[in-house]
Amino acid sequence: MERKSKLTIGIATAVLAVFGVAAVSPQDKYSLQSPGGIAFSDFRGYEDWAVVSSARTDQVLKVIVANPTMIQAYKAGIPGNGQPFPDGSKIVKLQWKPKKSTEAPFAVDVPDVFTQAFVMEKDSKRFPKSGGWGYALFNYEAASDKFTADSSPSDCGNTCHSAVKAKDYIFHPYQKR
Amino acid sequence: MERKSKLTIGIATAVLAVFGVAAVSPQDKYSLQSPGGIAFSDFRGYEDWAVVSSARTDQVLKVIVANPTMIQAYKAGIPGNGQPFPDGSKIVKLQWKPKKSTEAPFAVDVPDVFTQAFVMEKDSKRFPKSGGWGYALFNYEAASDKFTADSSPSDCGNTCHSAVKAKDYIFHPYQKR
Repeated sequence: MERKSKLTIGIATAVLAVFGVAAVSPQDKYSLQSPGGIAFSDFRGYEDWAVVSSARTDQVLKVIVANPTMIQAYKAGIPGNGQPFPDGSKIVKLQWKPKKSTEAPFAVDVPDVFTQAFVMEKDSKRFPKSGGWGYALFNYEAASDKFTADSSPSDCGNTCHSAVKAKDYIFHPYQKR
Repeated sequence: MERKSKLTIGIATAVLAVFGVAAVSPQDKYSLQSPGGIAFSDFRGYEDWAVVSSARTDQVLKVIVANPTMIQAYKAGIPGNGQPFPDGSKIVKLQWKPKKSTEAPFAVDVPDVFTQAFVMEKDSKRFPKSGGWGYALFNYEAASDKFTADSSPSDCGNTCHSAVKAKDYIFHPYQKR
């Protein structure tokens, strides 16, 4: 075999290896950042956080989870006791499109595909204009198995949540269980 | 003061102390046991377990959580990979009565009162007749702030869950988030 052929095969193999790996390696969703500057990585580990509450509309099944700092604050009586959530509090609303179960022995809606993670984090110094909370929305597309940062700064964000300013901008109480 | 009076006051104080404490001390829900012999204490800590999935009917908002052993098994591909959940797996379906939110800027159902914790635990030696799973139902009454073990052995239990025997008797997959 000539030297040039060997080199060509070598380069082709290297190219294949690189593209092959790129094609199968999953997205690092935690590299995403919202237009408002909120890093998804600030919420690293939310997959395993404890439940705050649940909700549903005709379009979405929701579970609200929070990080240990915020769960501890909830358990200490915040915000019902008039105290605000401490800096470092993080909360994520997980949203799934619903579908009718075809297995259950009764009529029940269950998650179809995951659609969105709506996130909030408390940092009084970073977000002084919105009650200390930063808001962002990360969308998920099941077909491509990819997350993207929503192009809106933060969905309705602080505008909506100002309705519950007296509860430190958080709609959901920690639900009994 | 006479000796008898002192004694009477002493007894009265002791009685008050005992009953006073009994009146304000919260229920130890973990002392409950189902008619089928499942101890609620087997599920100690479920309040902080990670989310598996969610569901809703017209009557109930549900969040399904599982202990770290079972979450780890889910993440390893069980039961889709044909393997059963390991002994020690525990899963709890939290159920709330829904109500319409009066605060949100859109129509949304949110939890009203907590109503039930439906629990399952895997122990092949203890529950050989029901695929290795033990089932129980603990009801919660908001008015008295008390849990009780449901008088049925386990709600529909193994009878219902046999519909998904091929998925090791578990309806809900671990949902993407």
